[in-house]
Amino acid sequence: MHIEMICTGEEVLSGQIVDTNAAWVAQRLLEHGVEIHSRVTVGDRMDDLTAAFAAAAGRADVVLVNGGLGPTEDDLSGAAIAAAMGIELELHQGWLTTMTAFFERRGRPMANVNRKQAMLPAGAVMIDNPVGTACGFRVRWQGTWFVFTPGVPSELKKMLLDEILPWLVRDYGIAAAMPLHRLLTIGQGESQLAHLLQSIALPEYVDLGYRASLPYIELKLMRRGPVQADAWQALLARIRGEIGDALVGENVVSVAEAVHQQLSERLLTLVTAESCTGGMVASQLVDFPGSSAYLHGGWITYSNVAKQRELNVSERTLVCHGAVSLETAAEMARGARERAGTDLAISVSGIAGPEGGTEDKPVGTVAFALAHQGGVEVQLLRLGARERNQIRVLAATVALDMVRRYLLGLPVMADYGYLKRVAQGQY
Amino acid sequence: MHIEMICTGEEVLSGQIVDTNAAWVAQRLLEHGVEIHSRVTVGDRMDDLTAAFAAAAGRADVVLVNGGLGPTEDDLSGAAIAAAMGIELELHQGWLTTMTAFFERRGRPMANVNRKQAMLPAGAVMIDNPVGTACGFRVRWQGTWFVFTPGVPSELKKMLLDEILPWLVRDYGIAAAMPLHRLLTIGQGESQLAHLLQSIALPEYVDLGYRASLPYIELKLMRRGPVQADAWQALLARIRGEIGDALVGENVVSVAEAVHQQLSERLLTLVTAESCTGGMVASQLVDFPGSSAYLHGGWITYSNVAKQRELNVSERTLVCHGAVSLETAAEMARGARERAGTDLAISVSGIAGPEGGTEDKPVGTVAFALAHQGGVEVQLLRLGARERNQIRVLAATVALDMVRRYLLGLPVMADYGYLKRVAQGQY
Repeated sequence: MHIEMICTGEEVLSGQIVDTNAAWVAQRLLEHGVEIHSRVTVGDRMDDLTAAFAAAAGRADVVLVNGGLGPTEDDLSGAAIAAAMGIELELHQGWLTTMTAFFERRGRPMANVNRKQAMLPAGAVMIDNPVGTACGFRVRWQGTWFVFTPGVPSELKKMLLDEILPWLVRDYGIAAAMPLHRLLTIGQGESQLAHLLQSIALPEYVDLGYRASLPYIELKLMRRGPVQADAWQALLARIRGEIGDALVGENVVSVAEAVHQQLSERLLTLVTAESCTGGMVASQLVDFPGSSAYLHGGWITYSNVAKQRELNVSERTLVCHGAVSLETAAEMARGARERAGTDLAISVSGIAGPEGGTEDKPVGTVAFALAHQGGVEVQLLRLGARERNQIRVLAATVALDMVRRYLLGLPVMADYGYLKRVAQGQY
Repeated sequence: MHIEMICTGEEVLSGQIVDTNAAWVAQRLLEHGVEIHSRVTVGDRMDDLTAAFAAAAGRADVVLVNGGLGPTEDDLSGAAIAAAMGIELELHQGWLTTMTAFFERRGRPMANVNRKQAMLPAGAVMIDNPVGTACGFRVRWQGTWFVFTPGVPSELKKMLLDEILPWLVRDYGIAAAMPLHRLLTIGQGESQLAHLLQSIALPEYVDLGYRASLPYIELKLMRRGPVQADAWQALLARIRGEIGDALVGENVVSVAEAVHQQLSERLLTLVTAESCTGGMVASQLVDFPGSSAYLHGGWITYSNVAKQRELNVSERTLVCHGAVSLETAAEMARGARERAGTDLAISVSGIAGPEGGTEDKPVGTVAFALAHQGGVEVQLLRLGARERNQIRVLAATVALDMVRRYLLGLPVMADYGYLKRVAQGQY
C-alpha cells in the first residue's frame, strides 16, 4: 500500500520540537512490513495545509496527518481538510459529550475553546482518544483516506496502536506486527556491533535493525515470516555469544526494567547509595509500579560529609583513596546495606565532569560496589570523556546491570566494550 | 524569502534515525527571522528525489537539501538533481585534491568509492566541508538555489554556520540572529494560557509561541525588530501578571536550573527527602556542574521503615495520618534538615499510582514540605489522575518550585492552575 505522512505544526517545522512522532509512527508501520513513502512537514498556515492535502489526494491510499487538533486558533488541521475538500465542519455530539465528561472527571469546567475539538469535517469517522481532548478522525477524498491524529505523543501512540493499525490490518490487509526480538546493549558502537555480527548469516526472513537511544544501542530482530523455533533459538544463541557482556537485557526497555522484574519475583530487597548519579538509579526503579515491594529507599550522599555521616564511610578512606575509589564505593555499599538491613545495596561514586578530573582519575571515572550476603564486589570504570549527563546515565545503567547480573547468577563484573574497567576488588 | 527543506535517507524516513538535523536547521534559521516554509522527507529512491526537486524548483528561493552525499550507492542526491535538471555530473578537481589530502592526513589511502563525492552537477558552486569527505554544493534551477548539505550532523552544522547562513545574510539580506525571551510555566494548559493572555495586544514585531515539554509549557517571545526597552519591560510585566504563579522561570530550561542558579549565588545548602519522586529532585540538581557547592545530598525514603529510621518520622504520624500527609511530609523535611544540618530541606511524599489511591487521597495526591530557618511549610496537592511518570515529574517540579519561591522571597505556596492545593499548614 502507498502510505504518506503529513506532519503539521509551526513548532515541528521550526524545530522547536524534534519530530519524534514521525520516527515512532514509521517504526510501528515498519513492524507491520509497511514503508512510509514520503513525509511532508508543514506549519500552521491554511494555504500550506490545503496544498499538502491536495497534493496527496488521489496519489496515496492513506495519509497519516499528525498534529493541529488542539483547541487554539493555530490548530487548523480539521478546518484545512474541510476547506480543501469543499465541505463543512459539523459538531460531533458524541465527542462533545465525551470531552465534557473528561473535564468533569478532572474537576474543571470545559473552556469554550475546546468545543472546537468536536467540530469534524462532515462525514468524518471519529477516532477515539481515551487520554486527551483531541479526538482523531478520518475522511476519504479522491480515494485517499486522510487520517488525523493528535500531536501529543502519548495520545498519538495510543490512537495508532489501538485504532489505526488494527484498521489498516483489517481494511488493507497489512501484516500483523512482525514478532520483534529486542536486544539491549551498552558499551559497543553500532559499527562495532555490526562487526561482531558480520559472521552470522541471517535467514532472509529475518531483518536486523539498530536503534541508538542513550545509553543503549538496541538491536531489533524482525521476523518477516514463520521461523522454526529451533533455528530461531540457535540464531539468538549465536548473536548472544557474539555480543557477550554488552548484552544487558532482552525485550525490556531498560536495565531497570530487567532489575525490577527480577527483584519483584525474587523477593530480595535493595537499597541505593548514590553520589554522581544523584538519585537516578533509585528513580529509575521507582518509575515502575510495585517497586515498593523490594526498594527500601536510598541515600544520595553527594558530599563527603554525607558519605561519612549517613553511610559510615571513614574519613581515612576518603582522605587516602578519595571519594571516587574502590574503597569508598565499597564502604558506601556496605554501610547502606547494614543500615537499611536489605539483601542488596548498590553504590556509585564518580567524576561526572566537566571539572574535577585528574590525570589519574579523568572525567568519566566511576566507582561501583554491590554489597550482598557474600561480600562486596567493586569495580572502577572509565566511561570516557563525555558530557556530564551522558556519564551519569551510563553510570546508573552500569550500576543497575551489576544488580541484574548478580540476580541472574552471572559474574557481577562485565566487559562492556568501550567502558573500560581499570580496577576491581572484593571485600 | 521562501525557503524549503528536503531531508533524504531511508533511515530518516523509516524512523531508525530521529531527524534532529531538520529541527536544528529550522531553529538556526528562525533565529535569523526566517521561517522554513515546508519540509519534505524522502527515501533513497531516484524517482522520489527528482520529483521532490522538480516540485520545489521555481517555487522556492532556496531549497536546503540534507543527506545523500556519501560515497555509497544509496547516496543519490547529486545524481538526482543532475538528472532532474538534465545536466551531467563533472569531476570537481579541487575537491578531489582536498579529499585526497584529507585521507593522507589520516594516514590511509582514499578508497575508490570516495571519488564519487567529487562528482558535482555541472556548474555547481562547491561548498567547503573542513570536517568530512562530503563537500556541499549549490546549483540554480528555474530561479531556485538548491543547496546540498551532508547528513552527518557535525558536518552539516559547521557548513550551515560557516558557509550557508553567511551566504543567506549576504545575498538575501536575512537578519542577524534575533533575541528570544522564554517563560516557563506549569499547571496551565496551552488553551488556558492563551485565554489568560488574550487581553494583551502584542506589538506586531513580537511573536508569541508555545512549546509543550512535560511538565512545562514554555512561552517564547520573539522580537522581530527593535523594541524600546521600556515598552518591552512593560509587556513582560503584563504577561507575568496574567500568568501569575504558573510562571516558574524565565530564560531557563527547568525549575531546577533556576534553583541551581539561586542556590549557587546565595550559598545556602539543601538536602532532599523523597518518597514517590525517588531521587528525581536531587538528580535534577546534580545534573548541573557545581551543584556540590550547595547540595548536601538526600534521602530516598520509599518505605515507611526508611522514613522512620532515617528521618525520624514517628510511627504515630504514619499510622494516624498516613505516609502521604502534611504531617509526614513535615516530619520528613524537618528530620532531613536536622540530620544534614543544611539551611533548607525539601520533602515529597505522594501516591504516584496506578494503585494505592483512595477516595480521600486519590492517585496524584502529593504532600510537600519545605523546612527552613523559620519553620516548616507544607502543602497537599492533587496533581490529577495521570500516568505514574507524569505525576512523579510534576511532583519533582513543584518541590523545586517551592525552593525557588522561598529563595526569591515569594510565598512558598502557589496556585498552579489545575494542580489543586487541598490542604496546607505551617509548623
